[in-house]
Amino acid sequence: METFFKVKTPQEVFAIIDGFLPVGKEMIPLEEALGRTLNRDLAAPEDLPHFSRSSMDGYAVRAQDTFGASESLPALLEVCTEVNTGRPPETDIRPGQAAKISTGGMLPEGADGVVMVEYCRPLDGRALEVSRSISPLENVILPGDDFKKGSIFLHKGTCLRPQELGVLAGLGLSEVPVFRRPRVAFISTGDEVVPAREMPLPGQVRDVNRYTLSGFCTELQSEPLYLGLCPDEPAALETLVLKGVRQADTVWVSGGSSVGTRDLTLQIFKTLPDFELLVHGISISPGKPTIIGRSGTKPVVGLPGHVASALIVAEVFLSRLVLRLSGRAEEPSF
Amino acid sequence: METFFKVKTPQEVFAIIDGFLPVGKEMIPLEEALGRTLNRDLAAPEDLPHFSRSSMDGYAVRAQDTFGASESLPALLEVCTEVNTGRPPETDIRPGQAAKISTGGMLPEGADGVVMVEYCRPLDGRALEVSRSISPLENVILPGDDFKKGSIFLHKGTCLRPQELGVLAGLGLSEVPVFRRPRVAFISTGDEVVPAREMPLPGQVRDVNRYTLSGFCTELQSEPLYLGLCPDEPAALETLVLKGVRQADTVWVSGGSSVGTRDLTLQIFKTLPDFELLVHGISISPGKPTIIGRSGTKPVVGLPGHVASALIVAEVFLSRLVLRLSGRAEEPSF
Repeated sequence: METFFKVKTPQEVFAIIDGFLPVGKEMIPLEEALGRTLNRDLAAPEDLPHFSRSSMDGYAVRAQDTFGASESLPALLEVCTEVNTGRPPETDIRPGQAAKISTGGMLPEGADGVVMVEYCRPLDGRALEVSRSISPLENVILPGDDFKKGSIFLHKGTCLRPQELGVLAGLGLSEVPVFRRPRVAFISTGDEVVPAREMPLPGQVRDVNRYTLSGFCTELQSEPLYLGLCPDEPAALETLVLKGVRQADTVWVSGGSSVGTRDLTLQIFKTLPDFELLVHGISISPGKPTIIGRSGTKPVVGLPGHVASALIVAEVFLSRLVLRLSGRAEEPSF
Repeated sequence: METFFKVKTPQEVFAIIDGFLPVGKEMIPLEEALGRTLNRDLAAPEDLPHFSRSSMDGYAVRAQDTFGASESLPALLEVCTEVNTGRPPETDIRPGQAAKISTGGMLPEGADGVVMVEYCRPLDGRALEVSRSISPLENVILPGDDFKKGSIFLHKGTCLRPQELGVLAGLGLSEVPVFRRPRVAFISTGDEVVPAREMPLPGQVRDVNRYTLSGFCTELQSEPLYLGLCPDEPAALETLVLKGVRQADTVWVSGGSSVGTRDLTLQIFKTLPDFELLVHGISISPGKPTIIGRSGTKPVVGLPGHVASALIVAEVFLSRLVLRLSGRAEEPSF
């Protein structure tokens, strides 16, 4: 009956894959958010920074008090205070006054610019020579210069890299709304396959797909769930596939999908609840005998048993599937 | 005294970084080897595959029995057995005989090729019509075709991807000799810095570098060890830096490295056992006030406090440092 099922082009398969939806949402601590995907747009809960900061080491001043100052004709100011970084300034600045300030320090009231320390020369007592004129707001970061309260600063579908974690931390978002990581159950099948730790007898080979597919899933930030090695035996495979559909978001069976002596995978898929066959054969080589279906909303996949074929199908098609299930729109960044 | 220390070019800094050595070696289970780096060349412990396999579904034959066969003049053979995949064939092939075989099946003695099933037509009884001539070894994978016993199949310094895990599994290497993952201790400093979960008071900012540097280390397959927030206070910083040198393979301090009011980091580094200052200032912007030294064989780093500066220095220089400590020669693949 599957003979009526036309082999699909990669483009047709992509379109089918794009029909699957993200597996779910959750809130997680910022510490665990690397590589995770935002499930909604995020708006800044406050201005960042939330106060006027100096971007240089130097002296906070009223810019107009420096107008015309130069090496040969410095302005003379009075140092009235020193700003302790991390604390609000103790006094305001009045005309003709300056406050010593470090990078990151909070600008005192009355000041509207910072003269870099290189252009300042403290004299005896509280006097200060300033040998350069600055413009208003020079070397100053204003409240909201990085992000304004209420503005969207990260979009739904963004995969969080170290720099995005930093922005989230800066804005105090210590919990992050992300899509759940899809859990991928996979099963290696074949009477000839033995665990990698065993010495295969004549005619047997070791289970390779377990490791390639597990690594593939981990790299894509999904959660691999290895269900085990399965002989080419309907009852055993049915049990494992059903277990996968129950415990995971998608089930991948490698081996048993070629038009060989034992075309088990599809036969078992057809016993799954609410099963629909979507792809039976893709016009690529290797990888042609790939099966994609769904049980309810969960994709079930039959992969060729040969490691190169299986990994090529994974790279070309299943990476896209995992990204869809993860809520990510873009290509993986690695 | 540091004023005698000339600002270094990025190339000079790269050369200094390349002087650091991998932090150590260990054997780990194959299941945990994704992203890890081989600490030596690996030779195949056996032939892969270790027996002659069919690469097609079809019939194993003596190729010469098919010579001249065509659609109009098929060769007539006798099917003497069926090879069960995963088990050695039950009988040998004699002239004029064929054995049904699936992809991956073990070639019977006497056979030297496989005719694809598409060119074979079983007749009544055990007779088989073959409508195509094959060459010797056609559709056959010989022992050692993938890897010959004793040949180097993976080189020292290789970062293990899913495909390399597959090769290791195929050859039965369930334990893998890798370099240890460097453990990176890092400390955020600054009187103005508060934890990301807190609401900063006027003049305070949240700790951002904790998250950016931790994510950065994780992406590079190193192990981040956050030692905490430290005020600009010598005794507190000294305690934390010393703890880092003891517990980790490298220590990174962000903040406190600019030529500001409090140039603490270097002052503390100088109290470390067997300390040597290697870099004090790099000719890049941002990122100039970067410090690199060593305590014994362990690199200690002072990073600018500003997140963009710190992350740029990390990307340009510390990624190379982490790769050196990890035994990886190449650039990161992400």
